[in-house]
Amino acid sequence: MWAYSLLVTTEMTVKPLILSMGDPAGVGPELCLRAGSWCRERHLPLVISGSATVLREVSSRLSLPLPACFQPADWDLAVSAAAGVSIVDLEQPIGRVSPGQVNAQTGAASLAYVEYAIERTLQGQAAGVVTCPIHKEAWHAAGCPFPGHTELLAARAGAERHCMMLAAPEIRCALVTVHVGLAEVAELLSVRGVLETIELAGAAVGRMLGRPPVITVLGLNPHAGEGGLFGNREEERLIIPAIDRARAAGWQIRGPLPPDTAFLPRIRQETDVFICMYHDQGLIPLKAIAFDDAVNVTLGLSIVRTSVDHGTALDLAWQGKAFPSSLYAALTMAAQLSEIWTEPMTPGATNHVAKN
Amino acid sequence: MWAYSLLVTTEMTVKPLILSMGDPAGVGPELCLRAGSWCRERHLPLVISGSATVLREVSSRLSLPLPACFQPADWDLAVSAAAGVSIVDLEQPIGRVSPGQVNAQTGAASLAYVEYAIERTLQGQAAGVVTCPIHKEAWHAAGCPFPGHTELLAARAGAERHCMMLAAPEIRCALVTVHVGLAEVAELLSVRGVLETIELAGAAVGRMLGRPPVITVLGLNPHAGEGGLFGNREEERLIIPAIDRARAAGWQIRGPLPPDTAFLPRIRQETDVFICMYHDQGLIPLKAIAFDDAVNVTLGLSIVRTSVDHGTALDLAWQGKAFPSSLYAALTMAAQLSEIWTEPMTPGATNHVAKN
Repeated sequence: MWAYSLLVTTEMTVKPLILSMGDPAGVGPELCLRAGSWCRERHLPLVISGSATVLREVSSRLSLPLPACFQPADWDLAVSAAAGVSIVDLEQPIGRVSPGQVNAQTGAASLAYVEYAIERTLQGQAAGVVTCPIHKEAWHAAGCPFPGHTELLAARAGAERHCMMLAAPEIRCALVTVHVGLAEVAELLSVRGVLETIELAGAAVGRMLGRPPVITVLGLNPHAGEGGLFGNREEERLIIPAIDRARAAGWQIRGPLPPDTAFLPRIRQETDVFICMYHDQGLIPLKAIAFDDAVNVTLGLSIVRTSVDHGTALDLAWQGKAFPSSLYAALTMAAQLSEIWTEPMTPGATNHVAKN
Repeated sequence: MWAYSLLVTTEMTVKPLILSMGDPAGVGPELCLRAGSWCRERHLPLVISGSATVLREVSSRLSLPLPACFQPADWDLAVSAAAGVSIVDLEQPIGRVSPGQVNAQTGAASLAYVEYAIERTLQGQAAGVVTCPIHKEAWHAAGCPFPGHTELLAARAGAERHCMMLAAPEIRCALVTVHVGLAEVAELLSVRGVLETIELAGAAVGRMLGRPPVITVLGLNPHAGEGGLFGNREEERLIIPAIDRARAAGWQIRGPLPPDTAFLPRIRQETDVFICMYHDQGLIPLKAIAFDDAVNVTLGLSIVRTSVDHGTALDLAWQGKAFPSSLYAALTMAAQLSEIWTEPMTPGATNHVAKN
C-alpha cells in the first residue's frame, strides 16, 4: 500500500539548493542573477556555482544586482543557509567569454560547475541540484564523455533506475523511453520499464502534492490498439500487466487510454501525472500547453535534480531577454522534492518561508 | 508553381450539402435536427439523409423543431436548394430503436444513409457529403465489409491517393500514416507518401483560406532525429527529399521541425497546416487544443467529404445533450471546400449567404 508522510526535520539549519550556471556564453549567467534575487525574496537558501568574472560582467551590462558575495570553492555551504544566497566562484580558465560563442573552455567550465554541484549534494552539503543549460557541442569539444546532464547525473549519482519527467502546474509527463528513434520504441518497452516509471513518477508527484497522485497511463498505439487492431498488442502484453501490478501495490491508476484523447482538458484536470511511452507522446502536449513553465526532473537518482526545460538560447545571451519562469519553476520543484518547502505551491506564490 | 483561383460558378442554383444521419441509436438524429435549423438560418442548402420515424420521435422527445418536410428517396435534390433544407426518408427496416442500443439493423440503416449521400454526390446532385457518426460494431454486425466511413468513401469515390486531415480554426493536421501500430510507422513512410500528403493538404487548405497556405512538416523522431542521433535518418532519407520536391513545386514549407516544439503557440500561429507522420503526432495536439471544434476531412476523393470528430456517444443519445459544434464546423468546412461559401469563415460566423 502506498503511504505518504511529510518529513519533519529536526535540523536547526536547512541545506541550500545548488544552482549550476550552465554555459557562460548562454543565458545561464543572466538567469542565475535573476534567480538569486528571486530566492532571496522567498527565503529559499541557494548557492550558485559558477564564475565570478562572468557574473560580474553580466551584472554590469544588464544593470542586474549581484545577489550575493562570492565565496571560494572550499567554502562550507552550510553557512550559506543563514546567508540566504551565496555564489561560489570556481575560477575556471575560460578566458574572455563572448556571449553566444561556446567553445571547449566554456564547455569545460560548465561541466566543472555542475560536477561541483553534484559532488557537494552527494556529500550532504546541499539539498538538491538545479541546472542551467549547458551546450552539448561545447561539452563534446571539452572531451566530456557524457552527452548531457542526465547521463552525467546517472553516472555520478548511481541511479539503478531513473526516468525523466517534465512537469508544469497544468500537466506532468513521465517518459518510459526518451531519446530513441520512433521505430525502436515498441521493442524497448517492457512491463518492468512501465512499472518503474509509474513508481518513480508516482512517488515524486506524491511528494510534491502531499497526497497520493492520480496517475493516467497512455497506450502505445492509436486508440490504445483498439483491442489488438493496431500494433502488436503492446497494450495487452506490456502496459496492462504493469498497470495491474501497480494497482495491486496501491497506486491509483487509469489506463491505458487512447493517446489522442488522454490530453483533453477534462482528463488533464483529473490527472496528476501522465505515464507516456515515448518522448513526443508526452512532450508534444506538454510543450503545446505549458512551454514557459515546464521543468525537467530526473527521477530515481540518489539526489534531487531539476532543470530548466530549454537550451542555452545563444541568440539571447547576455541581453536581458532570457525568460526566467522555467528556472523559477525548477527551483520551486527542487525545493518541494527536497522538502525545503513542505507546502504544495505554484511558481507564482510568494508567501513561502523555508523551515527554520 | 502553385496557383490559386476562386471558382466562379455560372449556375443559377447551388447544390446542397448532404448530411447522413449516422447510427439512429446515437447522437446523430439530434445533431441532424439542430444542423437543419442552423443551416436554414445561414441559407446553406442541406439535405438530410435518414429516417423520418426516428427524426420525428427525437424531435418530439426533445422539443426540437423538425427543420423541413420529408421527401422520398427518389426526389430530385436540385429542388432542395430552393427549399433550403430537406429531409430524405430512406425507410430502412430498423424496427423500434432504443437510444444507445446499436444492432445489425441500426448498422445497416446508417450504411444506407451514407451510401445514398455518396451516390447522389457522385451523380452531381449534391455538393459534398457530411457524415454523422456510425458505430463500427453495428456496421460489422450488418455484414458491412468496410471498417469505417473513410474506407467506404475510398472504395466508392475511387481515390487513387487520399489522406485524413483534422482541422479546427486554431490548428490543422494532415496525417501521412493513420491507423497503424506505432512500430510500423517508420517502415510505412515514403518520399511519395509525405509529398502526396503535402499536396493534398496544401490544396485543400489553400481552397479554404483563399491563399497559398504556410505548411509545417514534422520530423519522425525526437528532436527530428538530431542529425541522425535518434532513428534511422528517416528525416534525411524520406522527409527532407519530399520537402525539397514540394518546395520546387512552389509550396511554402518549413521543416522538418522537432515534433515537441512544433506546436508551440508561436509556430501554431504561423502555420496553416501541419504535416504529421503518424496518427497521435497530429491528433494529440489537435485534440488537446481544439477538441470541440475539430472536423475530420477526407482529402483526395473525387467528392468533398467532412465529418464530425467524435463517435456515436451512445450514453448521450436522444437526451438533448449532444454538442453540435463539431458538426457545424464540418458543415462549414464542406461548404468552403465545395465552394458554396467562397469567403473564408469561422464556425461561429453568422453573416454568410450562399451563392444565388
